[in-house]
Amino acid sequence: MIERKKTKRIVLGNVPVGGGEPISVQTMTNTKTSDIKATLEQIGRIECARCDILRVAVPDEESAHALRKIVKETKMPVVADIHFDWRLALLAMENGADGIRVNPGTIASRKGLKEIAKEASQRGVVVRVGVNSGSLEKEFRVKRDGEAGALVQSALKGVTFFEDAGVNAIKVSVKATSVPVTIQAYRMISKECEWPLHIGVTEAGTIFSGSIRSAVGIGALLAEGIGDTIRVSLSADPVEEVRVGLLILKTLGLAPPSPWVVSCPTCARCEIDVIGIASELERRLEGIEGSLRVAVMGCSVNGPGEAREADLGIAGGRVSALIFKGGKIIAKVPKEHSLEALVTEVEKILKGESGERG
Amino acid sequence: MIERKKTKRIVLGNVPVGGGEPISVQTMTNTKTSDIKATLEQIGRIECARCDILRVAVPDEESAHALRKIVKETKMPVVADIHFDWRLALLAMENGADGIRVNPGTIASRKGLKEIAKEASQRGVVVRVGVNSGSLEKEFRVKRDGEAGALVQSALKGVTFFEDAGVNAIKVSVKATSVPVTIQAYRMISKECEWPLHIGVTEAGTIFSGSIRSAVGIGALLAEGIGDTIRVSLSADPVEEVRVGLLILKTLGLAPPSPWVVSCPTCARCEIDVIGIASELERRLEGIEGSLRVAVMGCSVNGPGEAREADLGIAGGRVSALIFKGGKIIAKVPKEHSLEALVTEVEKILKGESGERG
Repeated sequence: MIERKKTKRIVLGNVPVGGGEPISVQTMTNTKTSDIKATLEQIGRIECARCDILRVAVPDEESAHALRKIVKETKMPVVADIHFDWRLALLAMENGADGIRVNPGTIASRKGLKEIAKEASQRGVVVRVGVNSGSLEKEFRVKRDGEAGALVQSALKGVTFFEDAGVNAIKVSVKATSVPVTIQAYRMISKECEWPLHIGVTEAGTIFSGSIRSAVGIGALLAEGIGDTIRVSLSADPVEEVRVGLLILKTLGLAPPSPWVVSCPTCARCEIDVIGIASELERRLEGIEGSLRVAVMGCSVNGPGEAREADLGIAGGRVSALIFKGGKIIAKVPKEHSLEALVTEVEKILKGESGERG
Repeated sequence: MIERKKTKRIVLGNVPVGGGEPISVQTMTNTKTSDIKATLEQIGRIECARCDILRVAVPDEESAHALRKIVKETKMPVVADIHFDWRLALLAMENGADGIRVNPGTIASRKGLKEIAKEASQRGVVVRVGVNSGSLEKEFRVKRDGEAGALVQSALKGVTFFEDAGVNAIKVSVKATSVPVTIQAYRMISKECEWPLHIGVTEAGTIFSGSIRSAVGIGALLAEGIGDTIRVSLSADPVEEVRVGLLILKTLGLAPPSPWVVSCPTCARCEIDVIGIASELERRLEGIEGSLRVAVMGCSVNGPGEAREADLGIAGGRVSALIFKGGKIIAKVPKEHSLEALVTEVEKILKGESGERG
């Protein structure tokens, strides 16, 4: 239902980005990259969470060398995040990085950038021009968050530089800490630039407020058709970034199908323990693949309607609760057995779909 | 920075809605309305959370009578949520409700709707025409979530009815469980209707996923300038709905100023305990009024830049951490004293702003 803006298609490792390909989810490790064991342990958890693209910081030579093992041990394409020292970008590519993220605000050396471009185009490595309001190039720097236009100008200058230097797979980002500035910057650059856009709100904050801020910013852009790959930036475990990213995509119908619990906000009409039942159901359905819509509704206002639309549903009533399946009432159960009865039906459906799940 | 779509201005109790007035935050009690004591206790907590508009379900006569006391005991305007029995709407207005929410899908009686309209126009009570995908009028009902067009048609029919019946303060909502359908429906109705729009995603789910879903849907609409009042629907304490609603508004620069912790997502470069410091700071700043931007940054990539833009900031370094205030370095502290040093500076600023806070 969302009409996506057209961008060029590039391929990062084995993941296509842009040109209408599925929107990919990224995160970044927060272990010391040179601590290969800790980094691989974290990457394992990130991969389990169904992340598509991985980024690792490469602040020193030891980290660049560590990439060789890291790239070998994960299925995800690996992007090396480079600042200050362009030589580390070359070393990261030598060690197998599928992509390089360069921030025009932290590498000033034109000679260095040319070397990066040369190496990237020879190796077919993707370059992300990643501009950030916290580290904007001096010539574009303005007050508070860098106005959207300044972020865009800096990014376009970087893009032109890499295009002219022969790089033929580019991604672009123009992140700000301010969500309105971020939205404005991406709206502007999506009109000016054909390369796929990596979207996100930079330094969004802690798990709860940072997730809300990211959902607003990334969600607003995706709803306008802008964005080819996303990263949620949280001061939290990278696995949480992946979970929130997938949830944002799922909300907009942009993720692979997975179970979804519709539940009412409860009010004076509520006849069953909606909060308890919905939370427990969500917990039990985590990690399950495939489409399954379960409605947990407190009363008869939207209850029967929602339950009818869902694959499975429960609606509270005065005396008992009604269980719906495929739009039909299949059982009437005492209210205190609501959760148990619903879970039994969920399990039947899951067993039916795949024998192994039971 | 967001250009809001123009709507008519109405006044609900003492809260103006539409016509460019600040976007108000709503929630709904989930106690039995007839249990006045429990309802007032919850309303007290909702008011403390800075909610603007309150809604209560009125499923029976006892609840309608309870409104008299409830309306008297709160400063917020009170909207009575009516389904099935139009007589309860009259009784709610007699007992002081400032607004009535009517769902055209749950009250079919034209005679009843006329009586509601007559009473509302005489008393100057605001009527919300609140359409919902789970209880759409039969004539408009389509598969799964009701297509956006069906929600809009049902709402516009209701609006015309109340306009023709002489009601001159109307709000409109077209909520669906599907976020893309919700966004599409509001985009459509905002072109067709001048009355202020109450926006939200219905039955969004449990606290975490429901908040993300609401942030995506409500955030995307607000970013396009659509929406005059918002309600986040969560299977959770109504206070959480208010918190999330305010956070969505704040994210888009649409809420009164309050402290904001910018914090980096941490990576291999991180030199201080960003997650711990940011979480603790956020906790300490909760409930404080006024603008204050504090940046917690792990390293020197975006650290100095963000810290410079913030009122107060900390950036991790190899040996020690730098504290910034108003763009200047004011201290260099051992990394293990980062939190303590930052909190001391925050407290100095808060004391300076208001003597009572210290």
